[in-house]
Amino acid sequence: MQFTEEELQEQIGKLEGWRLDKDKLVRKYMFNEYMKGIAFVDEVAAISEAFDHHPHITIDYKTVVLRLTADVEKLDLRQAREFNEAFEKNR
Amino acid sequence: MQFTEEELQEQIGKLEGWRLDKDKLVRKYMFNEYMKGIAFVDEVAAISEAFDHHPHITIDYKTVVLRLTADVEKLDLRQAREFNEAFEKNR
Repeated sequence: MQFTEEELQEQIGKLEGWRLDKDKLVRKYMFNEYMKGIAFVDEVAAISEAFDHHPHITIDYKTVVLRLTADVEKLDLRQAREFNEAFEKNR
Repeated sequence: MQFTEEELQEQIGKLEGWRLDKDKLVRKYMFNEYMKGIAFVDEVAAISEAFDHHPHITIDYKTVVLRLTADVEKLDLRQAREFNEAFEKNR
């Protein structure tokens, strides 16, 4: 999917919690239990396989950060929305 | 467990793949399938809960990096050995 800069900003504005960091799309997810974060990562992995597009993941105790490392103009923002849905299920 | 510098170096030398990076113990694990890396992370999480000590984890496609962030003198190196055993099972 190709975006103009303006379209991209509008799309990101609709994605709860996501922000652009040096042209990469990033979100930090916080959990109240370590294993909830791990269950979330398992769902993120399944979604990533389905999209054949794998975010960079960091797990720092109860905090999980996803970083979509494709060029922003190639990003499929539906994937970020699915990650958010997985978060709502696992938080 | 407390180590002298010499004892620590000797212990780390016995831990396959682990190295000291700025006083933190780090190992990179590489998998030939993304989901094998994820299964490994699930085991790492279970081990971490058992030790009540959670490494920093990064997942970069088929590469998983663990970083034990406690002060080295407080590290329980059995945990690193268990991570290595989990790797052997999941690689």
